[in-house]
Amino acid sequence: MKVFNDVLDMQSYSKGLRLKGKTIGFVPTMGALHEGHLSLVKRSLEENDITVVSIFVNPIQFGPQEDLDRYPRDLEGDRKKLESLGVDALFLPTPEKMYPEGFKTYVTVEGLSEKLCGAFRPGHFRGVTTVVLKLFNIVKPTRAYFGLKDFQQTLIIKTMVRDLNLDIEIVPCPTVREPDGLAMSSRNSYLSEDERRGANLIYLAMKEAEKTLMESMSFSRAVETLNEHLRKSPHVREIQYASLYDPETLEDLRDVDVKIYGKKEAVFAVALLYGKARLIDNLIVKIGGRE
Amino acid sequence: MKVFNDVLDMQSYSKGLRLKGKTIGFVPTMGALHEGHLSLVKRSLEENDITVVSIFVNPIQFGPQEDLDRYPRDLEGDRKKLESLGVDALFLPTPEKMYPEGFKTYVTVEGLSEKLCGAFRPGHFRGVTTVVLKLFNIVKPTRAYFGLKDFQQTLIIKTMVRDLNLDIEIVPCPTVREPDGLAMSSRNSYLSEDERRGANLIYLAMKEAEKTLMESMSFSRAVETLNEHLRKSPHVREIQYASLYDPETLEDLRDVDVKIYGKKEAVFAVALLYGKARLIDNLIVKIGGRE
Repeated sequence: MKVFNDVLDMQSYSKGLRLKGKTIGFVPTMGALHEGHLSLVKRSLEENDITVVSIFVNPIQFGPQEDLDRYPRDLEGDRKKLESLGVDALFLPTPEKMYPEGFKTYVTVEGLSEKLCGAFRPGHFRGVTTVVLKLFNIVKPTRAYFGLKDFQQTLIIKTMVRDLNLDIEIVPCPTVREPDGLAMSSRNSYLSEDERRGANLIYLAMKEAEKTLMESMSFSRAVETLNEHLRKSPHVREIQYASLYDPETLEDLRDVDVKIYGKKEAVFAVALLYGKARLIDNLIVKIGGRE
Repeated sequence: MKVFNDVLDMQSYSKGLRLKGKTIGFVPTMGALHEGHLSLVKRSLEENDITVVSIFVNPIQFGPQEDLDRYPRDLEGDRKKLESLGVDALFLPTPEKMYPEGFKTYVTVEGLSEKLCGAFRPGHFRGVTTVVLKLFNIVKPTRAYFGLKDFQQTLIIKTMVRDLNLDIEIVPCPTVREPDGLAMSSRNSYLSEDERRGANLIYLAMKEAEKTLMESMSFSRAVETLNEHLRKSPHVREIQYASLYDPETLEDLRDVDVKIYGKKEAVFAVALLYGKARLIDNLIVKIGGRE
């Protein structure tokens, strides 16, 4: 596995491959790799000639009060996992190389970036789209893989790619869960043992809410069920958002009549301050059917 | 000369050429082509295997009170000029194809876009950087050519390219002037005969100010000379800005001591509401020497 620390080295490696007609699959990550990340890597390995993974804890997507400093890092473990899967290249830039002095260009996807997580993490998605666009320009992928656990992020990146005419296929991949339903996340490592035991509550609450939706065909009742279940846990410090949303516009559907809603899918999405972590999760549901 | 109206057709033409190892030179324009534009085209033809020109009057870089509707258009004339020079491809998208419904992604170069013209045309440079990035992703140029008459625009685009790791060389080209010194601009066609006769005042004022600078070695005196000359014309409705600037930061230098200013170049830049037009121009000066 090649390891690149320098932007221009990475870029010229990719450029050479694309000129030879090779396809490049790209998995951008912040490291502390778990089975969710590895499922993206495996899919990229299947679908492309070359797979590039980046590990970069992107400072500009963290707010001043957030967990940039304590974000989990395990570079040696990550490297071994990627090497053993057969990844071709690992890109490991430093913040100084990504944001040299005088950096001042930002990309924003307006109207989607301010909703859900964006309302609680101002500037977060601006940081995400900016770094992802930079990484795309450096790694020059044919396809890029994103986990649907970050539903809003994947939607925003798909929108950016469409709007900026980027010649890249965005491949959204299903959320990988622990056996008890908890969505895998590097931030799960913040949880105490006791907190971890109850942390599948978001998944269970969304499944209950899905059942209510199927039975009642009422968005508002489904959202009530969701919130009732979330409120039961003593570890929940704050429900930042918990509702059912239009998966294209992120419009909150709780006051919408199912009969008027014309689309076939909706998405439950939740963000909690839970124990020592902030947890997010989501569940796409078919209207008139089960996921 | 190939003519493309469709984004995907243009993109796949360029993609095919880049895969064959061809270099592509790109000149993005808003049409109504004059000798300034043609000088960029000629340079691109000399330096690249293939030259692509785009003509697109970009609605998102015009303010609501600006001249989008009356901006000069001469598609047939433009096409003949480009064809006779030997341009390989002309890209002619419509606003609907560049900004389909739901478009919401914008690029901004913060700290440079709000100064000079940006202060009088809010959102202008956001519109410029967004369309230029889209055009770059569609046309996939090796090199792109911009006129230094739009000094601030060229600086902002160079900054965007650096910050977003675009693998494109930005080639700034000298301003082309009429025999009397007036910088060529499609907007000069707005001027009445009488206004046109006096419109070289910006150039003459900058040359006078340069002389003052060389003699006095005082930025503030040079800026005084500049403004004195500009105020003499009866056609000047407003001096939006007229000063000497740091060509990298666009910092206004009028209160800076020449001895403290460490750089070898500065730039006079002027924007006037003049007769029926808004005119801009600039002059790069060597500190301790002549242009």
